[in-house]
Amino acid sequence: MTEPCALGLDFGTASVRALIVETRTGCERGSAVAEYRHGVIETTLPESSERLPPDWALQHPGDWIEAIERAVPEALRAAGVPKSAVVGIGVDFTSCTVLPVDAAGAPLCLDARWARRPNAWVKLWKHHAAQPQADRINAAAERRGEAFLADYGGRTSSEWLAAKALQILEEDPEVWAAASAIVEGGDWVVGELTGARVRNACGAGYKGFWSRERGFPSAEFFAALDPRFGSLADRLGGEIVPPGRAVGGLTPAMANRLGLEPGTAVAAAIIDAHSAVPAATVVEAGRMVMVIGTSTCHMLLAERHAPVEGIGGVVKDGIVEGFYGYEAGQPAVGDLFGWFAKVAGGGDFAALEREAASVPPGARGLLALDWWNGNRSVLVDANLSGLLVGLTLATTPAEIYRALIEATAFSTRRILDAFEAQRIPVREIVAVGGLAERSPLLLRIYADVTRRPIALAASANASALGAAMLGAVAAGVERGGHSSFVDAAGAMAHLKPGRIEPDPKAADAYDALYPDWLALHDHFGRGPGAALMTRLRRGRA
Amino acid sequence: MTEPCALGLDFGTASVRALIVETRTGCERGSAVAEYRHGVIETTLPESSERLPPDWALQHPGDWIEAIERAVPEALRAAGVPKSAVVGIGVDFTSCTVLPVDAAGAPLCLDARWARRPNAWVKLWKHHAAQPQADRINAAAERRGEAFLADYGGRTSSEWLAAKALQILEEDPEVWAAASAIVEGGDWVVGELTGARVRNACGAGYKGFWSRERGFPSAEFFAALDPRFGSLADRLGGEIVPPGRAVGGLTPAMANRLGLEPGTAVAAAIIDAHSAVPAATVVEAGRMVMVIGTSTCHMLLAERHAPVEGIGGVVKDGIVEGFYGYEAGQPAVGDLFGWFAKVAGGGDFAALEREAASVPPGARGLLALDWWNGNRSVLVDANLSGLLVGLTLATTPAEIYRALIEATAFSTRRILDAFEAQRIPVREIVAVGGLAERSPLLLRIYADVTRRPIALAASANASALGAAMLGAVAAGVERGGHSSFVDAAGAMAHLKPGRIEPDPKAADAYDALYPDWLALHDHFGRGPGAALMTRLRRGRA
Repeated sequence: MTEPCALGLDFGTASVRALIVETRTGCERGSAVAEYRHGVIETTLPESSERLPPDWALQHPGDWIEAIERAVPEALRAAGVPKSAVVGIGVDFTSCTVLPVDAAGAPLCLDARWARRPNAWVKLWKHHAAQPQADRINAAAERRGEAFLADYGGRTSSEWLAAKALQILEEDPEVWAAASAIVEGGDWVVGELTGARVRNACGAGYKGFWSRERGFPSAEFFAALDPRFGSLADRLGGEIVPPGRAVGGLTPAMANRLGLEPGTAVAAAIIDAHSAVPAATVVEAGRMVMVIGTSTCHMLLAERHAPVEGIGGVVKDGIVEGFYGYEAGQPAVGDLFGWFAKVAGGGDFAALEREAASVPPGARGLLALDWWNGNRSVLVDANLSGLLVGLTLATTPAEIYRALIEATAFSTRRILDAFEAQRIPVREIVAVGGLAERSPLLLRIYADVTRRPIALAASANASALGAAMLGAVAAGVERGGHSSFVDAAGAMAHLKPGRIEPDPKAADAYDALYPDWLALHDHFGRGPGAALMTRLRRGRA
Repeated sequence: MTEPCALGLDFGTASVRALIVETRTGCERGSAVAEYRHGVIETTLPESSERLPPDWALQHPGDWIEAIERAVPEALRAAGVPKSAVVGIGVDFTSCTVLPVDAAGAPLCLDARWARRPNAWVKLWKHHAAQPQADRINAAAERRGEAFLADYGGRTSSEWLAAKALQILEEDPEVWAAASAIVEGGDWVVGELTGARVRNACGAGYKGFWSRERGFPSAEFFAALDPRFGSLADRLGGEIVPPGRAVGGLTPAMANRLGLEPGTAVAAAIIDAHSAVPAATVVEAGRMVMVIGTSTCHMLLAERHAPVEGIGGVVKDGIVEGFYGYEAGQPAVGDLFGWFAKVAGGGDFAALEREAASVPPGARGLLALDWWNGNRSVLVDANLSGLLVGLTLATTPAEIYRALIEATAFSTRRILDAFEAQRIPVREIVAVGGLAERSPLLLRIYADVTRRPIALAASANASALGAAMLGAVAAGVERGGHSSFVDAAGAMAHLKPGRIEPDPKAADAYDALYPDWLALHDHFGRGPGAALMTRLRRGRA
């Protein structure tokens, strides 16, 4: 008798991970990673020697399928389970990674007629060449008072769907005309697996301006950007489905290619970061998930919609069905510490951690604004930059390192303040991600600065585990999965033992510093200080 | 026929340098350095095992004479000149380095009755244990509206004479009662050489609150600090003599000990930094001397007295007789760059210099406030601290290094602004000191930021050369010296060939940045930003 298992497919930037998880225990039985053959396409298209412009980043959709053809059988072998054990499949995907497809759902870039046209290809999440389009989208939305803008903190990103679609239209109207739809990579893969062409509410909501109440923005809005762009509305068809809902069964052809049973339940996709939320045991309001890596993504479920200051996004059904999913972000966390370790002449994190741990709260009189990569939440201003104050001839590298960690903690506290100001409470933080696992000092400082207990998710593959949980929910209880996210989380998601509780004395010390940090935040985040930072950023350009 | 020579005796913190210089050419014929036997006394007195309190720094006055007994004959030998060639002797000395002496001018600490009393010893310039006394002096002077306070930027230092004297009185009234006078080390040495007990106007003015117009502060002022301290006025006797004036001839006994001719003219002393002014060819108004080392001292001659904002000191006859000598200072320059090189994991200045030279003006969007050791001029606030803004993930160590140099240059420009606001023009800068010689990049940036040409003094021993020039002036023209500083400078002081002219394009770039730097300076130097910095300093304490 084999334990029922779910398969999580975690599509990253360079590779996909297939993870086989027991649905009753969450035991991760086996996993395999397969790299994409073409990797990130940044210089030339696969069948052309013409150079791509700067800031372009593309993918090859064939890579995704080819990679899971290798990874899934290997994961099954590693897990030591028969294919019959896999009862459900979930997909998480980078986002916004989008491609134009034809009426049959086939990628235009795989059609010989379009293969040499850069705009026919998949624009990867980190394709940054659509900034002019994003600037115009923000200006038009603000001018027209579009309601959606407030759900994204008043500013939308060049990484998102509309900017990337507008770039296609403006740079290659023929590709635009040939495209029947613009789809997220995760939705396209689910379509390949099942034949069902739906959109996941997570991608549509956080990256496509969609909301359960309003739908997508109107054709009039899109037409205001370019008369021809009104047709984007036609290219956003398909049912919007919350992540984890069953969208169909695995087709026989795909079952054959992957070595799985035909008809296996496949769930609507989810964005990779958001997939970590159920994997971190969070399927209810009041517990914030922080995915702490090179940057930090904060996700919080709540029962109400509220205009939280400078939020990254708020989407009904965007993460866990039935809840408003709020997202915020800090764009430089691990990257910031890595920058400092490099500037400090090495990269000996272990020594910095050790020494910084013996520096008292407040880093001996240093404060920092952690805006080395701008500010993405509360202030939503990419032109802001990093600041250090309180430096003396006695200041040590370990003190600076600690001040930088404390700065990211104060920024997190400021984000929590924004939620609580709208009466959306946060009573606990669950940390996920490489940096969260590597730096006990960081978790200690975050607990003390935010005065919140911090738990750590048990899985080292949280996104893939979350995807497997979607598969288990899609399979349903009668097939060996779960009837709800609450049940799935109860069985499959775990926290590491031991929760970090705030130390009252350290928390008092940070409370005493916070008004000064806030004064710096407000001086440089708004008004003349922000204008100065913007001028300095121009000096770097 | 031997060229007439002057002897400069440059008394530093750890050693004395004797330099033999031809009076007609400035040719440095020979020099010798002798260390002080007891060095800086910081832990225990020579004849006691009792530990000194923190922040104490003492010297042994016998060391000074013993050291020149070794250094002068060695310098003569190195110069290859007979003792008859030496026509005049000048002394420059660290300051404020002061000692209590008896009615005969003998140091109390060399009297067995007082040798075990710490307050009987020489308090070296960097003795920092009199801060409470300095705080009270500042408060009392402000409360009483003492006129002298404005000549020191509104704040006097714990390093200066009155604070050190008040510490003697308060901590050891018996030593105080036994002291007939409190004298500067330089004046005491000149007294030993000649038997003439005078005070040099430089030390009295910059460190003793004396001015040509007002004299020393009144006994009433001193009594306001402590009724017994009114007697300080009695302990400040002696004629006040401009540096370079002949005060007497070398006594036969001293001539014998040093291997010189009796009756050789000896000049009134000068502070070591100020001695660099004539050595840098500056004996007229409008040319600022900057001694650039671990810190920077700015000195400027002018024909008028004016209330320059936050000046370090202004003294008539303090540097060159007939002129008002203005002093300003930046307390962290070479120390700041050294701090950064250490934080950046090494100390490879050559590599930082080379890379920073190819970074454009403005350090790619970085600005810094160079207050790592507080601000000593304009703002006069030791509680200020360093600030860096504009940091991004792309910021390199070389960019930060350049931003730190630029910050010290902006601070210099702000000091020039303060002079020019009082219609005291500065048309050229003459740089002196180790850092000025080692960093062409620094001189280039200073020229561009200040829009002033920068010349470099030729001598590597500027203070000792300046002292020799004092000796030449004291000797007078009929004995092979000079009749005036102008003549002495014309013959003995030289600039290196080539003057660094401001580059108009770079100067324009800095002009564009300067208002933003000033906005930071004013925000953090005054008002709420300064209060924040003061709180941060307390966090370090």
